[in-house]
Amino acid sequence: MSCKFSSSLSPSHNFPSFSVSATAGTCKLTWDHVLHISESKHVTQQDPSSYLQGYSHKVQLCNRGSDKQSEFLPFVIEGHVVGFIHNRFVEHLRRFNNVFVFTNDGGPVGDCVSLHPLLKTAEERTSAVAYVIEHLGEKYIPHIRNELYPVKSSFDKPTFFSLERAAAPYFGIKAYAIHMSGYVELDGEKHLWIAKRSHSKSTYPGLLDHLVAGGLPYGIDCRENVVKECEEEAGIPRSISIKAKPVGAISYMDIDGYRYQRYVVFSYDLILPESFEPKNEDGEVDSFKLIPVKHVAEVIRKTQFFKPNCAIGIIDFLFRHGYISPENHGYLDLLRSLIKGDCS
Amino acid sequence: MSCKFSSSLSPSHNFPSFSVSATAGTCKLTWDHVLHISESKHVTQQDPSSYLQGYSHKVQLCNRGSDKQSEFLPFVIEGHVVGFIHNRFVEHLRRFNNVFVFTNDGGPVGDCVSLHPLLKTAEERTSAVAYVIEHLGEKYIPHIRNELYPVKSSFDKPTFFSLERAAAPYFGIKAYAIHMSGYVELDGEKHLWIAKRSHSKSTYPGLLDHLVAGGLPYGIDCRENVVKECEEEAGIPRSISIKAKPVGAISYMDIDGYRYQRYVVFSYDLILPESFEPKNEDGEVDSFKLIPVKHVAEVIRKTQFFKPNCAIGIIDFLFRHGYISPENHGYLDLLRSLIKGDCS
Repeated sequence: MSCKFSSSLSPSHNFPSFSVSATAGTCKLTWDHVLHISESKHVTQQDPSSYLQGYSHKVQLCNRGSDKQSEFLPFVIEGHVVGFIHNRFVEHLRRFNNVFVFTNDGGPVGDCVSLHPLLKTAEERTSAVAYVIEHLGEKYIPHIRNELYPVKSSFDKPTFFSLERAAAPYFGIKAYAIHMSGYVELDGEKHLWIAKRSHSKSTYPGLLDHLVAGGLPYGIDCRENVVKECEEEAGIPRSISIKAKPVGAISYMDIDGYRYQRYVVFSYDLILPESFEPKNEDGEVDSFKLIPVKHVAEVIRKTQFFKPNCAIGIIDFLFRHGYISPENHGYLDLLRSLIKGDCS
Repeated sequence: MSCKFSSSLSPSHNFPSFSVSATAGTCKLTWDHVLHISESKHVTQQDPSSYLQGYSHKVQLCNRGSDKQSEFLPFVIEGHVVGFIHNRFVEHLRRFNNVFVFTNDGGPVGDCVSLHPLLKTAEERTSAVAYVIEHLGEKYIPHIRNELYPVKSSFDKPTFFSLERAAAPYFGIKAYAIHMSGYVELDGEKHLWIAKRSHSKSTYPGLLDHLVAGGLPYGIDCRENVVKECEEEAGIPRSISIKAKPVGAISYMDIDGYRYQRYVVFSYDLILPESFEPKNEDGEVDSFKLIPVKHVAEVIRKTQFFKPNCAIGIIDFLFRHGYISPENHGYLDLLRSLIKGDCS
């Protein structure tokens, strides 16, 4: 193997990301690299005092910048904090004074950003903020997706308005998503289907990924979203995907410059038939591979081959399925860290 | 069925407890009462806005009195808070001034209780505090168990000394325990083995209980404790119990008068052979029954037939196995509430 892998901070990505470098030219992550790690002879050796550190590190990579929270102003609607906006990004919003207002509520929230009181309905707010985002343009809010996220204070609360997905981190909106672990039991050993992202993806090209994951757009519930993403991302028919089970949630919050990502991800598990082979239908996946869970665990622990936020989802799976035990130091800390973000 | 069941606060127990009353005389909870609830025709009806309330209520019953925290002084050893002692219970400790000292550290902790600086080793501390407990007697610390709990600031930290189990709540010591869900899959449907406590138990006589659960005494790790309790409480041989899987943890904190209970409970799941029948070996269980998980869920939701802290463990099981879904209001709140205590 002539490639040299290193992990580094990649400024073009939302998270510190795995980067691949070779002595000559660029080298793409292949399944051979993955299998090399996961089949290394050290797989079963565990030093209980340090074994979990590789996992904790991956959770930290999705929860950066908590010391920078004071740089953000609360974004408040009808008395509820729905997001956080960087105090310098706020400057770009000031000229849109028929959309945003800057107040001090005199109460516990203090200085905050709000919507103009004349914007009363969800529809009015949605189109007014969309207007601002369009005028700010790709320079300030890149990678517009034309997909709307609901803006609310917590999951069960009413939606105040809807916001372009790409803008969510600039307004510190809590985004909801689903991720699904699809697995097969072969000779009593669980195997996870793992996806490798297409090399043409703008974010994390070529990295490993969940079999199925996706943001929860406005107006669709978790179960329907799982079925939809199963179809699009892995070609899993509804007759199978309807059996996916909700098994909890994880959350994280990550501050990177002006971007304040807050995510709550609902976890699903699906036992797949042995004969099933996933097939990507939206062009976002390069290939899939069925890998023993023990080996996936080693890849998560030892490398940054996975898209960073995937790691949290898989660590959650490892906890629930008995692959991490309390005899390892830091068990409870790691468990709690899986809902480090505002999980509401 | 001639018995009338009501739930009420029972002052003689550590927790609000199920109490059984009948028009004439006392009526014992039987499996018939349980099956009557669990097989009621409303089992599958779910109103998503209120369905989870029955579960949330059971979690609240184990997390009382958080508004009373200010009545307790921190119990500090070597700069670490290891417990909390009620400011009136502290008065009983003052005369033991060669064991306890009452200080203000001038730092963030403020007024606190500590051990005498001459008590330097774990052994010295253990025997000095045991002396105090013995002299306080059953009047102040009832139900002495002659079982030692380790006193530490968090699970992976060194043990400062060991304390009689019955005294733990009076010193607000965080106690660690294990609980195990034993289940069988019959025709694709999971069934949980449920225990009914002996009517002669001093706490929660006759109530429903986990198949296997127990405190984590000093000097034994979780896995060994699971194996030990499996043998004692349900007659599960090591050859089977060794397959129990660690699947996470729950925590709760409950203030009741002078008692500050803080518990972290490590969760285990064990798939049992269809042919296996549990057999109690320590006389603490009246009988066992294999009940479909869906029915167990209804019993938890609608009654207080279960020993209160069991409910949290079973709700955790329901989450992990897909019996509770995000479409129900309060899903994330309920999930977070399972580690409401100091889970460290």
